[in-house]
Amino acid sequence: LERLGTVAIVGVGLIGGSLGMTLRDRRLATRVIGVGRHRAGLALAQDVGAIDAGTTDPTAAFAEAEVAVICTPVTRIAADAIVAARHGPDHLLITDAGSTKEQIVRAVEADPRARAAFVGAHPIAGSEKRGPTHARPDLFEGRVCLLTPTPRTAADRLERARDFWTAIGCRVSELSPSDHDKALALTSHLPHVIAAALAGVVPPELHPMAAGAYRDVTRVAGSDAELWTGIFLENRSNLLSSLDTLQRRIDEFQAALIAQDQESIRTWWNIAKNRRAQFTFYE
Amino acid sequence: LERLGTVAIVGVGLIGGSLGMTLRDRRLATRVIGVGRHRAGLALAQDVGAIDAGTTDPTAAFAEAEVAVICTPVTRIAADAIVAARHGPDHLLITDAGSTKEQIVRAVEADPRARAAFVGAHPIAGSEKRGPTHARPDLFEGRVCLLTPTPRTAADRLERARDFWTAIGCRVSELSPSDHDKALALTSHLPHVIAAALAGVVPPELHPMAAGAYRDVTRVAGSDAELWTGIFLENRSNLLSSLDTLQRRIDEFQAALIAQDQESIRTWWNIAKNRRAQFTFYE
Repeated sequence: LERLGTVAIVGVGLIGGSLGMTLRDRRLATRVIGVGRHRAGLALAQDVGAIDAGTTDPTAAFAEAEVAVICTPVTRIAADAIVAARHGPDHLLITDAGSTKEQIVRAVEADPRARAAFVGAHPIAGSEKRGPTHARPDLFEGRVCLLTPTPRTAADRLERARDFWTAIGCRVSELSPSDHDKALALTSHLPHVIAAALAGVVPPELHPMAAGAYRDVTRVAGSDAELWTGIFLENRSNLLSSLDTLQRRIDEFQAALIAQDQESIRTWWNIAKNRRAQFTFYE
Repeated sequence: LERLGTVAIVGVGLIGGSLGMTLRDRRLATRVIGVGRHRAGLALAQDVGAIDAGTTDPTAAFAEAEVAVICTPVTRIAADAIVAARHGPDHLLITDAGSTKEQIVRAVEADPRARAAFVGAHPIAGSEKRGPTHARPDLFEGRVCLLTPTPRTAADRLERARDFWTAIGCRVSELSPSDHDKALALTSHLPHVIAAALAGVVPPELHPMAAGAYRDVTRVAGSDAELWTGIFLENRSNLLSSLDTLQRRIDEFQAALIAQDQESIRTWWNIAKNRRAQFTFYE
């Protein structure tokens, strides 16, 4: 990747902040500008070295940008992308880091100028922690970044988005916004729901009797309510299907347990165990 | 704790092996004998330094033991404890490390000699891995060990069991076998079921799109089917109640999601988040 000019990052929390750190550490851009709604967050992001400068005025930031990365909550991404398109130069690449894609891509593509500049992206990395103080320059290293082009996506922008996320350290692959949301409902949104369901039913007075299983299953229940409510609602129908799928699976277990059917419980468990054994996580 | 004489450990897997290592590292016993059904496992336990010697003949091992710790799967613990009582000296303390307690304690107490020697215990420590090669001398360090005495438990044995598990490094507390099983259904057995339920519904071809949430929620689905089938069946009615409780909680979420009720989803999430925030794990 040739060194980029100015990169504008909208939303400098954990994701935007980590992206800024990566860009700055690797000297991928001449300048990293944070765009936010609150001066305090921008100042914090600058203090931790995530951005070169911060502004609450998107107009000026986008005017000089070569790339704008929208790292706001999923409910705000489309609107922020459209603002970037309106104020940015003709060659601006707009990409994002949202955990859902279908509604965002549809809303962005309804705006001709935004559609011409936009490539939906989802770097699969994160944490239950939030804010620029938890940002890390290696957050995206080796992680999959899913690009979700559509037939209306400009080929040159897709190429630039691939180069951009690869330079950040991601392993880039592509699928449709709809396939993305179906998959992530199962691989990410459903795990969050069941983590919170378990955390919600174990009263704190029993915590001394909980150990590693509880700790790990519930970890992501510490995530931000506002962010995740947005994600659940944006991916509502796929998440409802995933909940049904999970339900049927739990029902199978429950039926085998009621029947004291040792063989069925063992088989049910081993299917899960074998699937889990095929999982590799690049850290 | 005065140095113990011979400690016999029945079952030298992850738990029994770790216990042996702790006893040997801390020089808590003059001799640690592993009792098992297979010579290969005993040889492995000896190779990793978990036991001083191993035998497939329980008679001889128990005859010289001051303490017998039953670390076999929950379905075998009561029978092994009764064998230990039959062959052990009058002053023998028998304790165990089983994840369930009610059925075990009831079965042991049906045997007068075993009842007089036994104190049910559950050191809350473990791993999805198994076997003496994964044993660690610090597995129990700082972990809670729940003792489950009944009105029929001998006071001197209870005192010796407290001293024993404290010397191992555990923070000891006491509750009834029935309260133990109710609590553990929620804090441990239910998390295992939902970990496996999730692992069972995510097809491996989606694994590249899974990250930290999936990894952590499903970790314990890698546990042994046989061991956990035994635990689920031993704690069947409490686990069924816990599944119902979880079900109601998931239903609440589902109803709020169907209704697109942002406020209810947020509240539902924050209850879980606040409960999880109160959890401290001593590692």
